[in-house]
Amino acid sequence: MKLPEEGTLLRIFFGESDKHNSKPLYEAVVVKARELGLAGATVIRGIMGFGADSRMHSAKILRLSSDLPVIVEIVDSKENIQKLMPFLDEVVQEGLITMEKVRVIKYRHKDCG
Amino acid sequence: MKLPEEGTLLRIFFGESDKHNSKPLYEAVVVKARELGLAGATVIRGIMGFGADSRMHSAKILRLSSDLPVIVEIVDSKENIQKLMPFLDEVVQEGLITMEKVRVIKYRHKDCG
Amino acid sequence: MKLPEEGTLLRIFFGESDKHNSKPLYEAVVVKARELGLAGATVIRGIMGFGADSRMHSAKILRLSSDLPVIVEIVDSKENIQKLMPFLDEVVQEGLITMEKVRVIKYRHKDCG
Repeated sequence: MKLPEEGTLLRIFFGESDKHNSKPLYEAVVVKARELGLAGATVIRGIMGFGADSRMHSAKILRLSSDLPVIVEIVDSKENIQKLMPFLDEVVQEGLITMEKVRVIKYRHKDCG
Repeated sequence: MKLPEEGTLLRIFFGESDKHNSKPLYEAVVVKARELGLAGATVIRGIMGFGADSRMHSAKILRLSSDLPVIVEIVDSKENIQKLMPFLDEVVQEGLITMEKVRVIKYRHKDCG
Repeated sequence: MKLPEEGTLLRIFFGESDKHNSKPLYEAVVVKARELGLAGATVIRGIMGFGADSRMHSAKILRLSSDLPVIVEIVDSKENIQKLMPFLDEVVQEGLITMEKVRVIKYRHKDCG
């Protein structure tokens, strides 16, 4: 069994319709994370929420369905997470970023297959 | 670059079909969070799960599809999170609440646009 | 009001198309968690992501839509979480597991109904 090590969980909350260079912001963040060699990234879409603008967004209200909340989650070492921060600082206009310490176990057995 | 500050991540796990005053419970929690002036809230729907009642729910089983798990996530100061607790204590009949310390960076650049 | 107690949040990141005995791996993990008497489990599907294999997966790319990221979340005591680890060590071929300390409040009011 692999042993856990210290890691950081970065979570970025913003809107699904937020853009960077006319592409979805969540896509830009994931692409940048891969460019920087981070271990992985996951984008989750919420079904309802409100944020910095305090407007309510819900999948039930059709005309707002394109502005549902999204969360991008990235787990890596503290050092690797820091590499992404200048980019986030530049592109996240309205949103929230949280950082937490986590214990990490990685599995990558397929390199022999 | 903005510096992170201490915050609390509140996560509430219950069922999508749980109600409060004949409205979805997740909606009631989000509306209450906004009324109390909390910084934001995000509702995530799971595709499968089980909880306090130990019955399995899955998006693959059609007749149970209305009882999928949901998670409501709220990030704010510990003090603001506490304001929501009496309401949760009243309305969450069956579920789970977790609290974690997180470091928070907020972006709200649009107030000048 | 109930008081929070110490708990562990286990999060397992892998692909929606990962299998165990020809069933979805996320389903196998949830079923095992219930067998072991854990308090609950929630499966969340991402809309985009990349992981250990560094290939990008997105709901927008149809032919890859079956390999979207999933996250299984389980909250329980540290002891109960440990019961699941040997199974995860066996079945998770490629993925990431994180553990965090959380404060937990459980609600189970329906036992009288």
